[in-house]
Amino acid sequence: MVAHMNAEALEKTIATGDAWYFSRSRHSLWRKGESSDHVQRVIEMRVDCDQDAVWIKVEQQGPGACHTGRRSCFYRAVPLRRATAVTLEFRDAEKTFDPKAVYE
Amino acid sequence: MVAHMNAEALEKTIATGDAWYFSRSRHSLWRKGESSDHVQRVIEMRVDCDQDAVWIKVEQQGPGACHTGRRSCFYRAVPLRRATAVTLEFRDAEKTFDPKAVYE
Repeated sequence: MVAHMNAEALEKTIATGDAWYFSRSRHSLWRKGESSDHVQRVIEMRVDCDQDAVWIKVEQQGPGACHTGRRSCFYRAVPLRRATAVTLEFRDAEKTFDPKAVYE
Repeated sequence: MVAHMNAEALEKTIATGDAWYFSRSRHSLWRKGESSDHVQRVIEMRVDCDQDAVWIKVEQQGPGACHTGRRSCFYRAVPLRRATAVTLEFRDAEKTFDPKAVYE
């Protein structure tokens, strides 16, 4: 998954070892798993060369990270080397939980 | 590495199988490797659930992707579960090429 961290989310993630993010649409800090119990325990955190991107390796609690009910948000592949419009292919797209039951 | 793709960069990446990006600071499209020869051949491309992030797996030509002369841009780790200011730790930080000789 990809999500935004502001300074406070980064600070809380480093201090607690749980992944915290900042929702730019809701203008609020959130801890991954606070409504779903799908907490992310951070195993490793790295920053990139110009320090505007953070990569974290997590131990994902529960059946998945994606709010659509899948393990990963990256469940669709883009076919390559096509000159025309592409149709996404579903990969690893099996739902591992029911998002309605988890996120209400 | 992390970089921005606009619609044209995405289109060119899909059509050619080479990674194209868009520089928001220079306001211009660029093909990774155009100055360094460190071309990225895309093996697989995925989009995330809300389709605003692209993940690509590449075959990296040359010794590295990072403009600092390293294989990866994520060569610094952030120590976790510290309440106070952190000091970055260097990991996989060995330079694999001389950026001055490769860029410009």
